[in-house]
Amino acid sequence: MATSVKAILFDTFGTIADWRGSIARMGAQLAQRKRIEGVDWDAFARAWRAGYVPGMARVRSGERPWMALDDIHRERLDEILEEFEIADSFSDAERAEMNLFWHRLDPWPDCLPGLIRLKPDHLIGPLSNGSLVLLSNMAKRAGIPWDFVFSSNLFKAYKPDPEVYLGAITLLGLKPGEVMMTAAHNDDLAAARGHGMRTAYINRPYEYGIDQSADFEASEDWDIVTDSVTGLADALHKK
Amino acid sequence: MATSVKAILFDTFGTIADWRGSIARMGAQLAQRKRIEGVDWDAFARAWRAGYVPGMARVRSGERPWMALDDIHRERLDEILEEFEIADSFSDAERAEMNLFWHRLDPWPDCLPGLIRLKPDHLIGPLSNGSLVLLSNMAKRAGIPWDFVFSSNLFKAYKPDPEVYLGAITLLGLKPGEVMMTAAHNDDLAAARGHGMRTAYINRPYEYGIDQSADFEASEDWDIVTDSVTGLADALHKK
Repeated sequence: MATSVKAILFDTFGTIADWRGSIARMGAQLAQRKRIEGVDWDAFARAWRAGYVPGMARVRSGERPWMALDDIHRERLDEILEEFEIADSFSDAERAEMNLFWHRLDPWPDCLPGLIRLKPDHLIGPLSNGSLVLLSNMAKRAGIPWDFVFSSNLFKAYKPDPEVYLGAITLLGLKPGEVMMTAAHNDDLAAARGHGMRTAYINRPYEYGIDQSADFEASEDWDIVTDSVTGLADALHKK
Repeated sequence: MATSVKAILFDTFGTIADWRGSIARMGAQLAQRKRIEGVDWDAFARAWRAGYVPGMARVRSGERPWMALDDIHRERLDEILEEFEIADSFSDAERAEMNLFWHRLDPWPDCLPGLIRLKPDHLIGPLSNGSLVLLSNMAKRAGIPWDFVFSSNLFKAYKPDPEVYLGAITLLGLKPGEVMMTAAHNDDLAAARGHGMRTAYINRPYEYGIDQSADFEASEDWDIVTDSVTGLADALHKK
């Protein structure tokens, strides 16, 4: 399979980036600077993320016109600052700055070593619901060596809508079977497989922490099932 | 200006890549392997490139439906193999391989040093008439550290059509004045300035060799006028 897979696309939030740990750390640091006490920043991270699927759903259904994920993040931030009873502590400018936490997520520790091994033989890039600038900033800060960035605002659509997968395949000028989708989420891979793409599942059972209710294991016979990007590199170089 | 320019976009053919020298070198190497003699490969490179503007013009005018630059390159290759009387020496598969010369162009020697200096403080990417895969392959081979890749097939339009510049600005989510267009071609910068972008001219008087008939100097008071990407880094970090 190694020779026939020419491009490998990666889901980002959860698959590449540890959003929960990153947001919790940045929140705790910010709280220390601002002398805010008593907030469970892991819960805050999970609450922020909980606005993700519903926020996109309103766009995907057509209930709302296209809006970038950064704007969805910001609306949800305003909500949860109220919920956590710290809204009075953050000005509009501070909220805008805090929204950029999502541009500074840390990758899981296996990502860079794995991507550095995959890059010489494959085109690699994210295929993410993040915005182009979010993904570019994240990669720049963390040293993620993407060859290109495929973002939701490129296609004005969110996964798992078909436009995203089909748009990526068309832009690459490749056959669907030459492109592999890598994700920690079975539904993302099911959509990709539905369009003829190859699939790799990376198990990330700690992504959501105590909120995790799915994706503890592969739900189908994906082409590769592993628990890290280094494991993906091992599997691709063996085949 | 350094602080207000958030993203720097680069024309690629001529500005970043020495297409003439690269194609001539690859052609000469191929000729040696195939024992083809008597071809002026610098002239071959210039003849190949001479199909670029007319090929895009037919797409830009609507005379032909959208086609990627790789396909324009391939049509022109078939023509010039005839012109240079070496068509019989190349099979269809060999022509397809030869067309990938454009994916393996070398950057001018100042590009990597300059881009490495610009990257920490700016988002950097090509804004090129090349295809996404062409630009990604070129960068991967040469080690060009783009943060993202903006290609003509992303917008299904060729510079200097407005869709390309406006599409890039929208994808970045920035104001036009926060985005700088860098090119060795005055017409590219004139279009960019027309949309409110900042402009940097890099003088490349040897781009076309003996065919060069324009772009020996800046034709307007571009925001920066220099002769290298390192010069661009100097100018931006001074302002």
